[in-house]
Amino acid sequence: MKPCQTLFLSIAWVASASGASFIPSGSSNSRTSSCSTRSFLYLPDEAAAGKNNVSNGKANDETFLVNNGKMGRVSMVGSGPGDPDLLTIAAAKVIEDPDALIIADRLVSPEIIALCKGEVRTARKLPGCADKAQQEIYDWCREGLMDGKHVVRLKIGDPFVFGRGGEEVLEFRKMGVEPKVIPGVSAAFAAPLLGGIPVTHRGISNQVVMCTGYGRNGTSPDLIQYHKEQTVVFLMAVGRLRELCDNLCNLANYPRDTPVAVVEKAGCPEQRTVVGDLNTIADYCIRYDIKPPSTIVVGEVVDVLLNEGVGSMEERVQGLVDMAVPSSSDVVAASD
Amino acid sequence: MKPCQTLFLSIAWVASASGASFIPSGSSNSRTSSCSTRSFLYLPDEAAAGKNNVSNGKANDETFLVNNGKMGRVSMVGSGPGDPDLLTIAAAKVIEDPDALIIADRLVSPEIIALCKGEVRTARKLPGCADKAQQEIYDWCREGLMDGKHVVRLKIGDPFVFGRGGEEVLEFRKMGVEPKVIPGVSAAFAAPLLGGIPVTHRGISNQVVMCTGYGRNGTSPDLIQYHKEQTVVFLMAVGRLRELCDNLCNLANYPRDTPVAVVEKAGCPEQRTVVGDLNTIADYCIRYDIKPPSTIVVGEVVDVLLNEGVGSMEERVQGLVDMAVPSSSDVVAASD
Repeated sequence: MKPCQTLFLSIAWVASASGASFIPSGSSNSRTSSCSTRSFLYLPDEAAAGKNNVSNGKANDETFLVNNGKMGRVSMVGSGPGDPDLLTIAAAKVIEDPDALIIADRLVSPEIIALCKGEVRTARKLPGCADKAQQEIYDWCREGLMDGKHVVRLKIGDPFVFGRGGEEVLEFRKMGVEPKVIPGVSAAFAAPLLGGIPVTHRGISNQVVMCTGYGRNGTSPDLIQYHKEQTVVFLMAVGRLRELCDNLCNLANYPRDTPVAVVEKAGCPEQRTVVGDLNTIADYCIRYDIKPPSTIVVGEVVDVLLNEGVGSMEERVQGLVDMAVPSSSDVVAASD
Repeated sequence: MKPCQTLFLSIAWVASASGASFIPSGSSNSRTSSCSTRSFLYLPDEAAAGKNNVSNGKANDETFLVNNGKMGRVSMVGSGPGDPDLLTIAAAKVIEDPDALIIADRLVSPEIIALCKGEVRTARKLPGCADKAQQEIYDWCREGLMDGKHVVRLKIGDPFVFGRGGEEVLEFRKMGVEPKVIPGVSAAFAAPLLGGIPVTHRGISNQVVMCTGYGRNGTSPDLIQYHKEQTVVFLMAVGRLRELCDNLCNLANYPRDTPVAVVEKAGCPEQRTVVGDLNTIADYCIRYDIKPPSTIVVGEVVDVLLNEGVGSMEERVQGLVDMAVPSSSDVVAASD
């Protein structure tokens, strides 16, 4: 069993502006230093101890909850957009722990749940009661911790990107443990990629903005004013796509012909990508019955590879590519 | 060998506004439809074919280059921030192909290179000659393709986030192939997480902006005006940190006491995180000799878990956590 650590990242740290050449971890002036100077240097404990293992425990060192001699701990794990092949190796190792109690988000894909070896409990959908569902998750986690279990909090995407991960860390600290947090592939980047859209492209876009479709208390989110060389990715926003498009045009100076793509169920076998512009995309999404989870990409990058791919097809038929004859199964009827 | 596909995502597509109920792939009006209506629906070929395999080939279906009866192909793979445990399962499978020719970015970690089973060529550092180094990469790829090899273009982070991935796709299309693109864990999200910073947090930040430190032709990038509930992540910018901080304050209305964290070598054993504000962080990074690769996080989210963790240490020493006595190896001397 490894020694316990208290800081999120590591017990080894330096309050640089304190005047002391070094400060032992946990010394009584840690709060004062941190608040008055706002300067810390965090180092991973294993580097400080002279070890050299890149794969394990160099960050987010978890602590344990000891109860009746049993040591409970928490891993908070991002499961990516849904495809088991897009799990990280670290995540795959954690969910294969047969002794783990896995508390999964409702939207974690069934294919990933199937890889879990321990007990799995999935968050329930309690419409209008997100807080109640969240409380149930915490109750399950506390129960597992008190039983000395390895509690795995399995989340979609990346735990710290629009996933309440930070709030859960604070809640786990109240329970007396520091979770080990493992990053995941976020749909914010992966959904555009899987839809054939690079979120940055030299000369086209050098900035990416990630937002949700909802501001605080269900209001519209604050919108950043239009900038031509910028990509905006909206998560969890397809339900109010028309309002969003109107707001971008009316409140944030977006031209109506700004390209928009919606990638539905990115990385799943039934993935679909609909492409239009701020004028048309809401209608197209109704026509094709696009549902959550979907990722919206707004900006000129939408055209970089998709239009090019379509436009150059005739040339490429003449080219070096070994073309298969399209079969009827490759043709999909429009729904109208 | 699977049938070849021509579109980035799939050969199956629908030009919805064309008036036809469906259009066979590769029909001669594809360019016209795509340009005049800007509306496509892309479906993955395997879903269209009625298959149901979530793990394989549902997006980014690659094409092959046929030469002397040998079929070359390209996989473009994100290797994440450097820790082999943060490779995706898909990436790990690809780099373990013993017959692959792996063309790796210069900054791919040695631990990940060590997992490659085939021949590895690493991009050279040609100072001031990024285009020349890029051309060498393309030459190697073309050579591998002509030899009928599985060319693996191994990139850091995610291939489509500030990585020229889109440009490389266009270049591979000129060579006659469509690469299979596999997302990776981007340092843009993972470095803040590994440094203990959730890029979003309810009530603190509901938007994340990703930028590089450099605009076109080496100029300063366009800066988004200050918004309190926004996080800005700068990649590849630590070399001009002081200028960046000054510009944020002078040109984008950032308060001087806005929290800033710099996470150096995220996910590596020697990871360090320095925390300050726009006034102080440039000095601290000089004091601690912070080098690339580093990720800069600007915004109130910096304090959400780091300050809380430090500030509450005394309480938690009294709490349920099984505290180890700090050893001398946990203490790091400041450099001044």
